[in-house]
Amino acid sequence: MIIVLKPNQSQERVDGFVQKLTAAYDVKVNTWVGAHSTVLGLIGDTTVIDDEYIAAQEVVEAVRRVQEPYKKANRKFHPEDTVITLPGGQTIGGGSLALIAGPCSVESEEQICAVAEQVKASGAAFLRGGAFKPRTSPYAFQGMKAEGLELLSKAKKQTGLPIVTEIMSIEHLPLFENVDIIQVGARNMQNFELLKRLGHTDKPILLKRGLANTVEELLMSAEYIMAGGNEQVILCERGIRTYETMTRNTLDISAVPVIKRLSHLPVVVDPSHASGISWLIEPLAISAAAVGADGLIIEVHNDPSHALCDGAQSITPDQFDRLAQKVRRVWDTVQSL
Amino acid sequence: MIIVLKPNQSQERVDGFVQKLTAAYDVKVNTWVGAHSTVLGLIGDTTVIDDEYIAAQEVVEAVRRVQEPYKKANRKFHPEDTVITLPGGQTIGGGSLALIAGPCSVESEEQICAVAEQVKASGAAFLRGGAFKPRTSPYAFQGMKAEGLELLSKAKKQTGLPIVTEIMSIEHLPLFENVDIIQVGARNMQNFELLKRLGHTDKPILLKRGLANTVEELLMSAEYIMAGGNEQVILCERGIRTYETMTRNTLDISAVPVIKRLSHLPVVVDPSHASGISWLIEPLAISAAAVGADGLIIEVHNDPSHALCDGAQSITPDQFDRLAQKVRRVWDTVQSL
Amino acid sequence: MIIVLKPNQSQERVDGFVQKLTAAYDVKVNTWVGAHSTVLGLIGDTTVIDDEYIAAQEVVEAVRRVQEPYKKANRKFHPEDTVITLPGGQTIGGGSLALIAGPCSVESEEQICAVAEQVKASGAAFLRGGAFKPRTSPYAFQGMKAEGLELLSKAKKQTGLPIVTEIMSIEHLPLFENVDIIQVGARNMQNFELLKRLGHTDKPILLKRGLANTVEELLMSAEYIMAGGNEQVILCERGIRTYETMTRNTLDISAVPVIKRLSHLPVVVDPSHASGISWLIEPLAISAAAVGADGLIIEVHNDPSHALCDGAQSITPDQFDRLAQKVRRVWDTVQSL
Amino acid sequence: MIIVLKPNQSQERVDGFVQKLTAAYDVKVNTWVGAHSTVLGLIGDTTVIDDEYIAAQEVVEAVRRVQEPYKKANRKFHPEDTVITLPGGQTIGGGSLALIAGPCSVESEEQICAVAEQVKASGAAFLRGGAFKPRTSPYAFQGMKAEGLELLSKAKKQTGLPIVTEIMSIEHLPLFENVDIIQVGARNMQNFELLKRLGHTDKPILLKRGLANTVEELLMSAEYIMAGGNEQVILCERGIRTYETMTRNTLDISAVPVIKRLSHLPVVVDPSHASGISWLIEPLAISAAAVGADGLIIEVHNDPSHALCDGAQSITPDQFDRLAQKVRRVWDTVQSL
Repeated sequence: MIIVLKPNQSQERVDGFVQKLTAAYDVKVNTWVGAHSTVLGLIGDTTVIDDEYIAAQEVVEAVRRVQEPYKKANRKFHPEDTVITLPGGQTIGGGSLALIAGPCSVESEEQICAVAEQVKASGAAFLRGGAFKPRTSPYAFQGMKAEGLELLSKAKKQTGLPIVTEIMSIEHLPLFENVDIIQVGARNMQNFELLKRLGHTDKPILLKRGLANTVEELLMSAEYIMAGGNEQVILCERGIRTYETMTRNTLDISAVPVIKRLSHLPVVVDPSHASGISWLIEPLAISAAAVGADGLIIEVHNDPSHALCDGAQSITPDQFDRLAQKVRRVWDTVQSL
Repeated sequence: MIIVLKPNQSQERVDGFVQKLTAAYDVKVNTWVGAHSTVLGLIGDTTVIDDEYIAAQEVVEAVRRVQEPYKKANRKFHPEDTVITLPGGQTIGGGSLALIAGPCSVESEEQICAVAEQVKASGAAFLRGGAFKPRTSPYAFQGMKAEGLELLSKAKKQTGLPIVTEIMSIEHLPLFENVDIIQVGARNMQNFELLKRLGHTDKPILLKRGLANTVEELLMSAEYIMAGGNEQVILCERGIRTYETMTRNTLDISAVPVIKRLSHLPVVVDPSHASGISWLIEPLAISAAAVGADGLIIEVHNDPSHALCDGAQSITPDQFDRLAQKVRRVWDTVQSL
Repeated sequence: MIIVLKPNQSQERVDGFVQKLTAAYDVKVNTWVGAHSTVLGLIGDTTVIDDEYIAAQEVVEAVRRVQEPYKKANRKFHPEDTVITLPGGQTIGGGSLALIAGPCSVESEEQICAVAEQVKASGAAFLRGGAFKPRTSPYAFQGMKAEGLELLSKAKKQTGLPIVTEIMSIEHLPLFENVDIIQVGARNMQNFELLKRLGHTDKPILLKRGLANTVEELLMSAEYIMAGGNEQVILCERGIRTYETMTRNTLDISAVPVIKRLSHLPVVVDPSHASGISWLIEPLAISAAAVGADGLIIEVHNDPSHALCDGAQSITPDQFDRLAQKVRRVWDTVQSL
Repeated sequence: MIIVLKPNQSQERVDGFVQKLTAAYDVKVNTWVGAHSTVLGLIGDTTVIDDEYIAAQEVVEAVRRVQEPYKKANRKFHPEDTVITLPGGQTIGGGSLALIAGPCSVESEEQICAVAEQVKASGAAFLRGGAFKPRTSPYAFQGMKAEGLELLSKAKKQTGLPIVTEIMSIEHLPLFENVDIIQVGARNMQNFELLKRLGHTDKPILLKRGLANTVEELLMSAEYIMAGGNEQVILCERGIRTYETMTRNTLDISAVPVIKRLSHLPVVVDPSHASGISWLIEPLAISAAAVGADGLIIEVHNDPSHALCDGAQSITPDQFDRLAQKVRRVWDTVQSL
């Protein structure tokens, strides 16, 4: 961490500030005195130092981190890729492409089981489906809740596909016993109390990037979970909010290689929420496979025009089947380069 | 609601779609047939209709709301301003300017009581102070939690100032017994489970706009609370995330008159989080008073450079005192115009 | 175009407005009268109608285009892909992947000729290089100007590669005689006087998307050029400005399939400016080839750390050679799907 | 300027880099060697140093400016406010509030003269009116051009109000002889060739902030004009592009005090373009006066629903009259604080 002091500070004030720093943190401070200003360099574990606290000090002009503010999610301290492995042997990360597919929301036993069978036949290794649904309007369908989770369990029993589904409140956690991967939605990416609690579970967490959160904030939210002891975190790029209205969100495709360089955690891409338009899912999925994503999470519905949510961005099982074949071919090509 | 159908649909398909609409919703449908396309107009309560569901229908090209998707928060159905009145007689809304002030986080009894006394002397009618703190880093100070709430109660007892403090989890609700106004932070604006639960409390809720949420989404989140029966909602503009890095966020000053036109709920402005810079607080506070805000929520710390959080954006009690006098003068001038 | 009128307008005012519309434009107006409001549907060529003019009318509540506001760039009126073909036979669009490569700025004869030879050997069909450079600071290197154009001509003579270079002012147009494709930079995307003038040249124009311009605005700027008679326009996605600071811009990869659906014009991607980071160029280039871009424009410098501009985002000829092989393989795979 | 070097560089490489720096620039370099990395501090005029060039060097990890990259626009080197004074005695800056008003575009002699008389009577000291209009669509009204400038001259002769009007191309400069203040529109804020040319004129320039440009970029564009010798630059905040669709742009009210702290140049606010909605003009104008703007530029049309452009955001002369009285009262109050 580099701290630029304000010009013309007395030696006494500078010394006082340096003492304060060394008393409060386990760091060594090097001082460089220039003609107009003094710069301090802090050596040691600066992760625990609060930038804002430093910036608020009267003698400080500016603060600059050299070291990233996350540790457990940081590739520097954990160079090998993290691979999430489920009891059934399914994996995310580590050189394979995981396909997670299923409807936006669970609507009936027939629906979820039918979709599960179909996406499994097309190569999906995980079943997604919402039981608790975050909706902008209180008057929109809010999901089947506990009953939805039971139907997911039935589909899992029938197909063997592990379940990925979203949690919206700590209080619902006991209902998630039979869930394999717990999803944290974009709107809850900085629901820190939820993250802390999930840090004490032993299930993998699929953490979606918030609507307007930076890659660094996403990694800090992963750090919340990991700091609690649960290091099985899967990150998900699902598009960010910009001024462009042609798509529901703007897929930040660069985030995939950027995150993979900064962190050892696997990264999956959600082209359904990123675009909000069914015909865009396939090209975006191909593009994500090409850029190096570890997986794709895709909304598939056997009857999109009757879907109770997100129909406009759902594809049919047939479309998913073609998509799956294509992304596999592109993935194989890229991996062989 | 206006629905533009895709070109060249058979009469049969159009009729089938219209029947589906009238069966599902309590609406009348008017059909206008143009040379190239057909447009449907829905009359009735369209609030409960899900745009996305309509957009996903095969025959649909585009959907356009004419009516706003919120009801209880809508000024059309509730023309008079909502005024929040506390048991102690303090009000927010209805032609006065409420000043809410206090430290980012409660740090000690001395600190919170001293700041409370000082901001009260300067005209603040409400004391703010964080007990549970949402921090980007798990390694940053997370607040004094239950103990912080107790200290706030002491400051309230001592000064008579009602307390405004943030809730971060439904589970903490029992601790908020003695809190007067419960704040929902920007990061939880779309934590819908929390909003629903707060809809069943009898305390006023100060709802902050999310980092990248639209005014309409803010009103929809207010609607979540109001739909549960709690109509005492105060909205808060606290800056939105943009590409500009000179300020922590970009204060969307236009949101104040826009919200006041669309809704009857009071709107307060938080210049501290909007700017993140102490010397900007005063001009922004003046500007917010001039544009018609119903109140201001401002971080005041008796020793900003020792504040455990947000020191860089805190002002001292003396600075707050000058600010309070100035905003009063500007507010009075604007009200007299 | 659909026009929603304000509620409770007298029949007379509605009739007067309809007459005004039919007098001013070559359209037929259909009127649909609902219980609360009246909606007008305009049939005919609404491209020339100014939304804002309509929106400003006293009786108007809202305006919604059904038809796109661009004609010549619109795929609806020109279903086949436009293919740009140069006299030397090089093409952009129409089922091939065009590689455009070269340094950010021309610095010397040795530099530009060496890079040209190298990128040609790696499969680039076009040479890029800046002679006039748009720089944020007036104190930064502004390009070699006329001399730079001469050096580009030498490189062209030596290698046969057609030249792509940026124009910054109408006044410089006479110097561009020997240039093959004239580039309009992101900052000039809405320099309408420049666009109009280029509409009267007979050279293909490579039009870059502005920092914060929508896809529709990009197509409208293309329309400016095409309306003048020059229909040889190549569009370029080069990243848009968002709140994310990890990359220089955010590559909007979805824009490629979106533009190709809306327009017949070819689309190339610039991963160099989109990311601003040399190690990101390759994954983004692969991703762009996979999503269906018609070409790539990439900064290549034989000595990035001595480049007079954009060194941090330039790759070496060796890196470009590997990149070119990889994108070809991915492109071939995707085309064969 | 602080340069953080990559870890583990040999002493030889560090020395070589330092020599390169001192040879290329008129700076002294101080070196601070830490346990893991080395930091260089450059003392002297670093304005001319190109950050990107430094960042591209192989040994460099990161670059941080301490000094702003602009000089002539910088308040540090020019502490007193710049006041623009016209031959007729009208001023912008220096403790008064300048009102600039008039129609979006000049449409006829009657229109411009009538509006000029009316806004003058209400206290406007400058007449705005567009002769060359930047329009997104090539099919929209492009302004009366040279004829429009002549009509502005007539209105000036009749009322004595100096003229503010936009230039869209260097080639039109000879037509601007009789113009008093030349406006550079948001879309041309980084049309650097235009800025350079205007740097050689002797007329004040009103420079509008680009749609998605930072405050620093705005100051750098001012620097382009000032570097050419013309130091009479007026900056204009007119709203920036964000994800919010309720208003046409998002007025960045904080930019006013931020710019005034960084620079000595006067700052005016354009509430018409910032909001795009006529009823928002007044509250935003009041808010801008309260925050310390040096002036307001407002679209006034005697018949908004017949305006050939921007009617939806124009106010009538009567509305302007009331607005002018109110902003004066607020301005006076704020100045007296």
